[in-house]
Amino acid sequence: MTDYAAPLADMRFALTEIAGIDDIARLPGCEQASADVVDAVLEEAGKLAGGVLAPLNRSGDQQGSRLENGVVRTPAGFKEAYAKYVAGGWNALPFAPEHGGQGLPMALSTAVFEMWNSANMGFALCPLLNVGAVEALHAHGTEEQKQVYLPKLVSGEWTGTMNLTEPQAGSDVGALRTRAVRDGDRYRITGQKIFITYGEHDMAENIVHLVLARLPDAPPGTRGISLFLVPKFLVNADGSLGQRNDVRCVSLEHKLGIHASPTCVLAFGDNGGALGFLVGEENRGMECMFTMMNNARLNVGLQGVAIAERAYQQARDFARQRVQSRPVTATSAGTFAIIHHPDVRRMLLSMRAQTEAMRALAYYTAGAIDRARHHPDGDVRVAQQRRVDLLIPVVKAWSTDLGVEIASVGIQVHGGMGFIEETGAAQHLRDARIAPIYEGTNGIQANDLVGRKLLRDKGMAAEELLAEMRALDGPLAAAPGEDIAKIREQLSFGVLALTTATKWMVERGAIEPARTLAGAVPYLRLMGSVTGGWLMARSALAAEQHLADGHQDRAFHQAKLLSARFYAEHVLATAPSLLSAVAGGATVMAFDIEQF
Amino acid sequence: MTDYAAPLADMRFALTEIAGIDDIARLPGCEQASADVVDAVLEEAGKLAGGVLAPLNRSGDQQGSRLENGVVRTPAGFKEAYAKYVAGGWNALPFAPEHGGQGLPMALSTAVFEMWNSANMGFALCPLLNVGAVEALHAHGTEEQKQVYLPKLVSGEWTGTMNLTEPQAGSDVGALRTRAVRDGDRYRITGQKIFITYGEHDMAENIVHLVLARLPDAPPGTRGISLFLVPKFLVNADGSLGQRNDVRCVSLEHKLGIHASPTCVLAFGDNGGALGFLVGEENRGMECMFTMMNNARLNVGLQGVAIAERAYQQARDFARQRVQSRPVTATSAGTFAIIHHPDVRRMLLSMRAQTEAMRALAYYTAGAIDRARHHPDGDVRVAQQRRVDLLIPVVKAWSTDLGVEIASVGIQVHGGMGFIEETGAAQHLRDARIAPIYEGTNGIQANDLVGRKLLRDKGMAAEELLAEMRALDGPLAAAPGEDIAKIREQLSFGVLALTTATKWMVERGAIEPARTLAGAVPYLRLMGSVTGGWLMARSALAAEQHLADGHQDRAFHQAKLLSARFYAEHVLATAPSLLSAVAGGATVMAFDIEQF
Repeated sequence: MTDYAAPLADMRFALTEIAGIDDIARLPGCEQASADVVDAVLEEAGKLAGGVLAPLNRSGDQQGSRLENGVVRTPAGFKEAYAKYVAGGWNALPFAPEHGGQGLPMALSTAVFEMWNSANMGFALCPLLNVGAVEALHAHGTEEQKQVYLPKLVSGEWTGTMNLTEPQAGSDVGALRTRAVRDGDRYRITGQKIFITYGEHDMAENIVHLVLARLPDAPPGTRGISLFLVPKFLVNADGSLGQRNDVRCVSLEHKLGIHASPTCVLAFGDNGGALGFLVGEENRGMECMFTMMNNARLNVGLQGVAIAERAYQQARDFARQRVQSRPVTATSAGTFAIIHHPDVRRMLLSMRAQTEAMRALAYYTAGAIDRARHHPDGDVRVAQQRRVDLLIPVVKAWSTDLGVEIASVGIQVHGGMGFIEETGAAQHLRDARIAPIYEGTNGIQANDLVGRKLLRDKGMAAEELLAEMRALDGPLAAAPGEDIAKIREQLSFGVLALTTATKWMVERGAIEPARTLAGAVPYLRLMGSVTGGWLMARSALAAEQHLADGHQDRAFHQAKLLSARFYAEHVLATAPSLLSAVAGGATVMAFDIEQF
Repeated sequence: MTDYAAPLADMRFALTEIAGIDDIARLPGCEQASADVVDAVLEEAGKLAGGVLAPLNRSGDQQGSRLENGVVRTPAGFKEAYAKYVAGGWNALPFAPEHGGQGLPMALSTAVFEMWNSANMGFALCPLLNVGAVEALHAHGTEEQKQVYLPKLVSGEWTGTMNLTEPQAGSDVGALRTRAVRDGDRYRITGQKIFITYGEHDMAENIVHLVLARLPDAPPGTRGISLFLVPKFLVNADGSLGQRNDVRCVSLEHKLGIHASPTCVLAFGDNGGALGFLVGEENRGMECMFTMMNNARLNVGLQGVAIAERAYQQARDFARQRVQSRPVTATSAGTFAIIHHPDVRRMLLSMRAQTEAMRALAYYTAGAIDRARHHPDGDVRVAQQRRVDLLIPVVKAWSTDLGVEIASVGIQVHGGMGFIEETGAAQHLRDARIAPIYEGTNGIQANDLVGRKLLRDKGMAAEELLAEMRALDGPLAAAPGEDIAKIREQLSFGVLALTTATKWMVERGAIEPARTLAGAVPYLRLMGSVTGGWLMARSALAAEQHLADGHQDRAFHQAKLLSARFYAEHVLATAPSLLSAVAGGATVMAFDIEQF
């Protein structure tokens, strides 16, 4: 009932037609990503995801991670699954070759990451956090730190964490109080961190904590924060593990979902101070943190895609086997599965079409990261980075909001059985619900989109994207068929609305900051819906072309055309109506705080 | 943190301005509902809800009901709370006086029911199910059955249940297999029922099961179903409790939410057959069931309102005390609660405005029930019943969908703390998620709306409602101020869209039944959004009038105006965009089942 099969056909389609994996494979440093390799990686990852990780999803939820005498025990089977994951070289997939990474493109590793998260989000969080630690060390670590820590973190023998949050410092990182005191060429760290994902566990022999802390003489706020590497076990000169460091897990949170993932309260320095090593410069920790967070935000957005895919598969399988009532379409006697009912089909198609749109956007953004890193032309790199910076908050917030909505529809497809925990549909909603919150709440993503990504460049990056969207109108007009005509119509309305909203935001942002920020979330939703619609239109064109070329898999490409049309009629069609809310922040700010 | 205070001011406002409680109190049989009585009832109910039931909500969720040796133990404190509830006469509130009911109007009892559900949805389900049993017996029971059972069910000393579902018969009630065999003037019932809310518990001395079953010679499908009264304890001639009947609880479901409410698997007749007594005529059980379900659907819709209100209060209280980051609006140094952040205010206002709109619709519908029952003019009664029949599926589905969405926003307001179970915000989402499913899934409500309420009378009832909405344009045009002008504008678009969609549905329903049913859920959402917008516009006019009259509570009425404007700009403004999905069923039906 809760099987997962990686949607290889749609993943390949999105990689080829949307991310442009063939072009990416021609970039210097990405040459290994030949079509054969891409196929093999997807195929093998699909096996690990479906065969090893997915079967542990439900039991992992039921058992949860447990804290026993300071040791965190992950659910049965997790340790063994992680060992297989490491042994297969999967952890090294996205990383640069210099420290043992496989150097495969981000677009490909994004597809693979989607699989881990679909199969078992509670498990996948461990590698997800590790990516941030690797990237921070890669960008800001000393040569020695890289030599000692990166090979183990890249292979996955050791795992990494991100230690930001404290009880009084959540979204407001600058309010953190954890102290770091110089002690020779090291530091002694004292304080408490909360919400530390896989802050303690039994799947790896060492854990490398990246910890934000404050020096005694640091300036207040975010300009006084430094980043420290605090290993669970200190590392000897020969690379072997030494003494246990002064950091321990004092409790685990009881959460709505992702029960398998231990969310730790970590106490640093109860016995004299945990030994920490500065990463980057003193008081420049926030920059390092943003390095960690940027790709983490893409990966969290991907969790929205992944959980939506899993919820879709489960709802579809249930709807195929559950027999109930005679549908209006029935032309014969006998029993009918509920998938024949028009509204059940509508629900399934809404799950599927939106998941495809989110997948397209996530892979597209990952492809832009590859170009920003590897393109030989510096101007292209800069332009692609601008695109990435613009879209990261959209991928994160739009996909995770939809992930929750789609998981909820998945429950609805099941009827009463959806509310029963044994069915597994409810877990997806519980798991999905964290993603709009962590790695910067979706409200913060919207503030970032409007404040940093729109206003700072006066809408240039957004206008570049909009120009590309408009340029698709020609090809859409030239393509045959009613499906594409309908898609074209809705896309044109959507692009017009997003253009209007963007201009409005750029004009008003400086004059009425509170009002524009009160419209930031609807604006982000508008941008997600329209950008998703643009990529679905590109998918429809590609599918149409394959059909015209006599591609052998007609059913798949016909389904792509129809899901794009569904998206246009049911999702994109509602996007322009968000304009009123985008500009409606004046009412929000007029409502007195005392009146709530 | 998880306190609940009944929103008395808004309840009184909705009762007075929307339901028209003053007029209702002048109807024959409703005379007791004087303004003083209404105030006193709301006040006292608020005390019980806030002081007794609400404090048991979280512990009830944690402990859940438990099955021990065939006995279901409700969570600590529930039995005592139920005794207080019965002793206070609260259970008798909505029922006709002839069997001990208080005969208060439905509009008032609806407000009170909202409180029980806000305070403790897991508790409130027991009285909710009981209402259905009372109404079924009242409408279809023999005189003797009424004499024996109604006084105890009305007082709440005994509770009632609805036994419909079987493993193979959920939405498809006609597929049920539970057997009833004549045995003199009684029947012997054998079979298994699932999803029986409060099917077994320890709060009352007897439980009266209303059970749908099939006679050996019954025709297949829904025309062969009969309704039986099956008491847990048989009742002696003197009214005392006799022998234990052959029905027992064999297991409880593990559910996503409403843990306090025992969801039972009941086995009937394992020892020779449970004794049952026919209610109504043989093979006419479905009619009796609809009697039970109609008001139950209103009450489940009300659960959507109730959980939204509870989630709003909790999110608001958290946002007031949680200090985090400096808002753009800050004009001074110091710390700021997150309620100052524009997006937090937007979230809170979206929760509040939609809750007010849902409350208005639920109370309005309850008021229509009072008129349909008590109005001296038969034509008015018929017209009001038509309105009730039209709106019941809307109240049920629209409010419960929004209940889930609003509870989810409530989590978001909390940030990371929202995902931690101890906070209590997550429970509201878990509890809310059942309401779109039970008492007929929201897909079935939409089918009912389109199939029975639109197509059967060719849109007459809907057109009557739309005509009333159009008639509000004059008063809106005549009223002063930008708020009302904005509301009028959005309402006119909404009414136009609903008119278009209704005509389309009525025209196409007979020709393309599958296509129209594939658009039924978006159509219902459109009707809910617009009808809610109409009632919010009426609220705004009333508030404006009170402000003009110099009403002493200016802040409250200003808030009503602004929340109505917010609703118009942020919710109603998106409603017309659903037209595309309403008509978009062709794409849904074109997507081949094999392609999913």
